[in-house]
Amino acid sequence: MTTKVLGHKAPDTDSTGSPIVWAWYLNEVKGVPAEAVLLGEPNTEAAFVLKHWDLPKPAIISDVSEGEKVVIVDTNNPAELPAGINGADITAIIDHHKLVGGLETKGPIDITIRPLACTATIMYDLMGDDVAKAPRGIKGAMLSCILSDTLEFRSPTTTDHDKAVCEALAKDLGVDMGELATAMFEAKSDVSAFSEAELLRMDSKEYTVGATDLRVSVLETTAPKMILDRKDALMAAMPGVAKEDGAHEVLLFVVDILNEEATLLVPNDTVKQIAEASFGCSVSGDTVVLPGIMSRKKQIIPNLKA
Amino acid sequence: MTTKVLGHKAPDTDSTGSPIVWAWYLNEVKGVPAEAVLLGEPNTEAAFVLKHWDLPKPAIISDVSEGEKVVIVDTNNPAELPAGINGADITAIIDHHKLVGGLETKGPIDITIRPLACTATIMYDLMGDDVAKAPRGIKGAMLSCILSDTLEFRSPTTTDHDKAVCEALAKDLGVDMGELATAMFEAKSDVSAFSEAELLRMDSKEYTVGATDLRVSVLETTAPKMILDRKDALMAAMPGVAKEDGAHEVLLFVVDILNEEATLLVPNDTVKQIAEASFGCSVSGDTVVLPGIMSRKKQIIPNLKA
Repeated sequence: MTTKVLGHKAPDTDSTGSPIVWAWYLNEVKGVPAEAVLLGEPNTEAAFVLKHWDLPKPAIISDVSEGEKVVIVDTNNPAELPAGINGADITAIIDHHKLVGGLETKGPIDITIRPLACTATIMYDLMGDDVAKAPRGIKGAMLSCILSDTLEFRSPTTTDHDKAVCEALAKDLGVDMGELATAMFEAKSDVSAFSEAELLRMDSKEYTVGATDLRVSVLETTAPKMILDRKDALMAAMPGVAKEDGAHEVLLFVVDILNEEATLLVPNDTVKQIAEASFGCSVSGDTVVLPGIMSRKKQIIPNLKA
Repeated sequence: MTTKVLGHKAPDTDSTGSPIVWAWYLNEVKGVPAEAVLLGEPNTEAAFVLKHWDLPKPAIISDVSEGEKVVIVDTNNPAELPAGINGADITAIIDHHKLVGGLETKGPIDITIRPLACTATIMYDLMGDDVAKAPRGIKGAMLSCILSDTLEFRSPTTTDHDKAVCEALAKDLGVDMGELATAMFEAKSDVSAFSEAELLRMDSKEYTVGATDLRVSVLETTAPKMILDRKDALMAAMPGVAKEDGAHEVLLFVVDILNEEATLLVPNDTVKQIAEASFGCSVSGDTVVLPGIMSRKKQIIPNLKA
């Protein structure tokens, strides 16, 4: 039986690249038949990375079967996984997020969660000397995953170890990290093809603060103007998206990668109060700039207050 | 703040020794102030192991405080941990059981779960070359944990890797594994001081099969006669223990380590039906011998049927 290796439902570079990396390792090093799959269309950066490293786009699946062998990477949250996940035969989990509970396994399995910026960094460590056997595309995928998740080491989630692994991969491949990162971030910033609702859901996690269920959405970009020019339409789309997804509010943070700041859209008084309570800022218009805010995991979620 | 390193509520050798091993590693190698603690009185084998390796008995605690730093080893099951565990600041989990869900962490942390027989084997791997720095008592604790959890390699949970690590430790220490295991199992078998209710709860996990909540208890011994001579009193104590613990039935498996078989006590028709459905045996009296059955994790729990 082929093991399916999958990330979360909103495939960014790490959730697209890491399944490919681990499926290669299982197939070629461990002798375990494995296939990377996606739970949705990769975002524009992930699509660029696939093309850049000449990697075939994994098949997109909508659910997993009872008893099917599955390796989960880049999440441990059942809400971000197929509905049937707890019926599958989960054989391993590799992740770098907080444990949220809810996943169950049928027996003891390999679970490796580390407080690092990127799943690919953990995989690099787990593979040990076998990394040397990886073809260029697999090493390139790891390099791109780390550049993406660390925003080229600008994100406060970045650890010295992520950076060291990334630099070792770039040196091995003879790649200029800065050039690659710039091309990746430009690809990520080209969101012209997406509707407002798609943008609000592109990189979004559910989070409850007090009695308010939030969709906490982040758009990392080197061209914030392209998104902020659509501010009115984005705010107009929020109530519909919130209602459909069972949330009270959508918080959209437009993260300016190069200037290392976030702009939060403030469509109403509820969001205004959350913004002021959470970030100690004073909101006057329908946006607020939050200097230095780059990471949902490290800076947004831990600070959210009602 | 000192990090408390703790195992589960029924401290056997692994849940007593592994916290001591990891607290040593945190203190002496990682420079993180840490203290091993217990959630109950160690069993007779664990008490022997502490004395044999001249290790002080860790303090017994009843709960953890809000925000207290905690490392959890040898379980990931909130039911086997202090009531306040999800309020603590869990900084790492090292375990070899199936993921049951229910534990949550405040941020991404180090979680290492492996399908190995023993927590100490995982620690040996995680420590890498730093194992060489461990004093005799710490290496001895690891050796004893592996001999205990594998029943000196008789248990089907034993992997080649557990065995290799155990043999390396024994060689390093110049210890005869067979002699040590015999002394440990003799200590474990000396249960004369315990009441029937204590015996039923000594090494017990809750498990639901169909609509029946079970306490699945195991007593590993080299002197099964000592326990089976108390069969009538043990069966008489079962309804009270089940009621107090919110279970319908107690299944007590007396595992004969040397003869590699288990004797299940059969106090009533419900247990008789479970035994016959689960193990394909035919029960005539109030006990049934199950040849080859040594492991709750590998052989009992996965086979239980209503």
